[in-house]
Amino acid sequence: MTGTVLEGIIAYPVTPFSAADGRVDTGRLAALVDRLVRAGCHAVAPLGSTGESAYLDDEEWYEAAEASVGAVAGRVPAVVGIADLTTRSAVRRARFAERAGADVVMVLPLSYWKLDEREVGRHFTAVADAVGIPVMIYNNPATSGIDLSPELMVSLVERVANITMVKESSGDVQRMHRLAQLSEGRLPFYNGSNPLALEAFAAGAAGWCTAAPCLIPELTLELYRAVRAGDLPAARAAFYRQLPVLQFILKGGLPTTVKAGLALDGFPAGDPRHPLLPLDAGRTGELAELLAAAR
Amino acid sequence: MTGTVLEGIIAYPVTPFSAADGRVDTGRLAALVDRLVRAGCHAVAPLGSTGESAYLDDEEWYEAAEASVGAVAGRVPAVVGIADLTTRSAVRRARFAERAGADVVMVLPLSYWKLDEREVGRHFTAVADAVGIPVMIYNNPATSGIDLSPELMVSLVERVANITMVKESSGDVQRMHRLAQLSEGRLPFYNGSNPLALEAFAAGAAGWCTAAPCLIPELTLELYRAVRAGDLPAARAAFYRQLPVLQFILKGGLPTTVKAGLALDGFPAGDPRHPLLPLDAGRTGELAELLAAAR
Amino acid sequence: MTGTVLEGIIAYPVTPFSAADGRVDTGRLAALVDRLVRAGCHAVAPLGSTGESAYLDDEEWYEAAEASVGAVAGRVPAVVGIADLTTRSAVRRARFAERAGADVVMVLPLSYWKLDEREVGRHFTAVADAVGIPVMIYNNPATSGIDLSPELMVSLVERVANITMVKESSGDVQRMHRLAQLSEGRLPFYNGSNPLALEAFAAGAAGWCTAAPCLIPELTLELYRAVRAGDLPAARAAFYRQLPVLQFILKGGLPTTVKAGLALDGFPAGDPRHPLLPLDAGRTGELAELLAAAR
Amino acid sequence: MTGTVLEGIIAYPVTPFSAADGRVDTGRLAALVDRLVRAGCHAVAPLGSTGESAYLDDEEWYEAAEASVGAVAGRVPAVVGIADLTTRSAVRRARFAERAGADVVMVLPLSYWKLDEREVGRHFTAVADAVGIPVMIYNNPATSGIDLSPELMVSLVERVANITMVKESSGDVQRMHRLAQLSEGRLPFYNGSNPLALEAFAAGAAGWCTAAPCLIPELTLELYRAVRAGDLPAARAAFYRQLPVLQFILKGGLPTTVKAGLALDGFPAGDPRHPLLPLDAGRTGELAELLAAAR
Repeated sequence: MTGTVLEGIIAYPVTPFSAADGRVDTGRLAALVDRLVRAGCHAVAPLGSTGESAYLDDEEWYEAAEASVGAVAGRVPAVVGIADLTTRSAVRRARFAERAGADVVMVLPLSYWKLDEREVGRHFTAVADAVGIPVMIYNNPATSGIDLSPELMVSLVERVANITMVKESSGDVQRMHRLAQLSEGRLPFYNGSNPLALEAFAAGAAGWCTAAPCLIPELTLELYRAVRAGDLPAARAAFYRQLPVLQFILKGGLPTTVKAGLALDGFPAGDPRHPLLPLDAGRTGELAELLAAAR
Repeated sequence: MTGTVLEGIIAYPVTPFSAADGRVDTGRLAALVDRLVRAGCHAVAPLGSTGESAYLDDEEWYEAAEASVGAVAGRVPAVVGIADLTTRSAVRRARFAERAGADVVMVLPLSYWKLDEREVGRHFTAVADAVGIPVMIYNNPATSGIDLSPELMVSLVERVANITMVKESSGDVQRMHRLAQLSEGRLPFYNGSNPLALEAFAAGAAGWCTAAPCLIPELTLELYRAVRAGDLPAARAAFYRQLPVLQFILKGGLPTTVKAGLALDGFPAGDPRHPLLPLDAGRTGELAELLAAAR
Repeated sequence: MTGTVLEGIIAYPVTPFSAADGRVDTGRLAALVDRLVRAGCHAVAPLGSTGESAYLDDEEWYEAAEASVGAVAGRVPAVVGIADLTTRSAVRRARFAERAGADVVMVLPLSYWKLDEREVGRHFTAVADAVGIPVMIYNNPATSGIDLSPELMVSLVERVANITMVKESSGDVQRMHRLAQLSEGRLPFYNGSNPLALEAFAAGAAGWCTAAPCLIPELTLELYRAVRAGDLPAARAAFYRQLPVLQFILKGGLPTTVKAGLALDGFPAGDPRHPLLPLDAGRTGELAELLAAAR
Repeated sequence: MTGTVLEGIIAYPVTPFSAADGRVDTGRLAALVDRLVRAGCHAVAPLGSTGESAYLDDEEWYEAAEASVGAVAGRVPAVVGIADLTTRSAVRRARFAERAGADVVMVLPLSYWKLDEREVGRHFTAVADAVGIPVMIYNNPATSGIDLSPELMVSLVERVANITMVKESSGDVQRMHRLAQLSEGRLPFYNGSNPLALEAFAAGAAGWCTAAPCLIPELTLELYRAVRAGDLPAARAAFYRQLPVLQFILKGGLPTTVKAGLALDGFPAGDPRHPLLPLDAGRTGELAELLAAAR
């Protein structure tokens, strides 16, 4: 295993689109990334699921990658997300991310036709071989349509030098147990399921990959600090305080709800891309109340 | 409801890729389309799931659409498949297909973030509004990650003039019953699940959308003729004879297995696109035996 | 394989309970069985899922078995259902059924703790060894909590002389295909999922195990006759005519809805046993309308 | 809410059967209960899923209830499990348990025909009304075939005075979050999924319902003490140490594996009841190794 290893709160910005022409608003993206760094997040991960990575064409994706890595400016690690149906496109984007200065690429294989383990393995190997920076395996069956077993992920980490981390977003804490057991505690794993934040840390997660810092950075950091201090009652209190917000943004779709929340905070980031629609007025009101109650 | 209504065997060609550079082999594609028409298929549907539509970039997709519609040459209806994550790309491709001479566009909404009914409805409406030809709704939760209810599909057919047909690939015959009930038998529905071919016809499907004619056109047509003749025992016999082939190509992934079968038949169509891998030797041997037994 | 092989409409009576004391009303049960035989059903199957077999204590079960087999009086085959958590109780009831004159016992293994194939196999073998009459394997994962694979069922049929038939109630027609393929068409299989009646016959089912004859015997027989005549359009018409009733009784629970329907027909059979509650007034009205429309 | 509220390690004994005649070995059962109390467990719960409650006939169940409550002898709370298909039987057993001195009855509604919320509610209400002691709602969809929503369970607790606790065995920590949110932290909930022990305590569970103390009492108590001390690293260490045993006993079925483990420890408790079969030699060897490694 080589290079950057992440720890703590890994913050996922949305990708703002311009209201005028629907293009990526790189200025706004850079400003949001800067907010996340200044709030104290331990890493920033543009172009994740929250960043609508899969919905961008190549040019847009390149612009967004460049702008966000530039805005991080080396203050914390920059993790760039890649979610593609074809291996050639994933390789192309990973190379671009590395050249743009990314510290890590996070790779989610998308499935249309089901992939067997040989096909998944080859996809990850092709991307990892194309870059010199560490690769984080990203398992998120609900969005990608493919569920990577802990066994497969650990075997990839063992076989490929720069595949060094796993992000688990299945929401199943038993997968994390299994990752810990199979790697004898040596594989750093990250939780990508917001309402599992407390328990994933209890189970030994090295970090929490989350869009919540766009809206409630202080609360996410408070949970992490309590966990690191080994103070379970304080961690539980911090978790239950922010849980309604975490449940709401997960259920409503992260780009949709986080963009609505940013607009509420006076930081408009445009709408999510069609077919996604903006949060309607009723639910935006709900979100405003949940945010007020949590803060 | 307007325009073309399909009936019978709707044949789905693979999209051949050149072994040299991986690009779409339009000559080969045209030859395959021609074979399907000459075999007696009642319609041809390029760029479906079998045609790896979702894996092609815009230029490739345009080339393939043009070449295949041109090869159909008006002899039977040409149905062009569109499977995109974003509405703008689906609209762009639908417009192109219409200009290229397609009779019908078949639209599969892909899901990364879950779509609610409002979002799905808007996606279909946007595509239908962009063209003058009929739109076939395509439900295939296993590949698209989104499951369209019969209620939603029938309501779209009722609300939008040129949304006129439904292709059901969930493999659940109860969905077909529901479509028939909700539309009082007026909505033509098509079966896209190969191992359900017999029962879908029993339930009243107007046609069978299938890649099997690339390998066993005569058997698929024999099943259809027996059904139309109301001869259930003959239909059952034809079905069970080809069922092992249908099960094999579904389980192994249609582009992967159909390309292997075409190569066995001396009609090489290249490999499926990475991360999909070609069928391995052992399973190719199995397929050869199943084809020999069925023919 | 030995003894009775069933074919056609296998009718499942409810088990009437006395309004006064909640005990089995054997007179009413016998009258219902007689109605089913006189309506022309090809076999009668008391103490199935519809007959609340699993909810009866030993004494009640013995009484019901005796009364119903007696009422059949050899006019058609009598199939007695056994659904028990323990093997010893299943064996005891099977022996009783044989002594009471049953032609077949239908055996559903109930699951609390998950059973592996060895355990399921031993359960069936123990019951089959305890009787001389044929055993029908009953797969109904929705009620029993255990799903028997076609492979396991066919292997039991091959290994045990008096296990000779399979009733498939999973509602998945692909299971029936698999049974036909594994047994090379020699194993008689029966459909226990009402809304699959048409397609199961298309797939080659030897019979339809159904409670619907309690309410619409003529329609179930009409479907069967059309199928046997090879007249697919007539079969489809008969099927869609009764489908709303079939959907309703499945969704609402067979004992609950069939008892409500019998009461509507002036043949009160008591309420289902608690925790099951009688159908409420609104849904009873719906059922009355569906029955009127179908008849 | 009235009466006993449990906290800590709630230990579930198996029900030993005599090798000679298969009857309940009440002496052995009493000895096992005594071991659990003397080991320091905070409550003992005979006739749970582990105790094969659902597989016993009335006489056997009465004997087992009497013997085990007698062996507890008031040293800790005795919780008696009731898992029945019919309400009348559940009521009968609950009354018996109360007379026998149980402090709490834990009630699992079994499902054959699906129950709606009205039916489930009535079942619990009938049992609660029949006794004066507290009732613990037990949700275990994998064994019972019915999944109780947090909303339903909290509404029962609010409506019925002596329904005061919930045991969640779905293994889904989000259900626990929801119970805490709906009851504003006031409802004591218990975790019944062994491999979730650590995270359930993190989420605020009042106790852990587990058969593991039959084999590794000290480790289960160590986890609980670390949690109560707020020492997350120690809790995590204790959890991962025993996790392989917890995974093994869950996967293999608790009565089967715990009886095998007790025999390994020189405390034979007979075999589980057919159709359950004893653990085979290979897996018994595995269990011996896991136990040795954990202790």
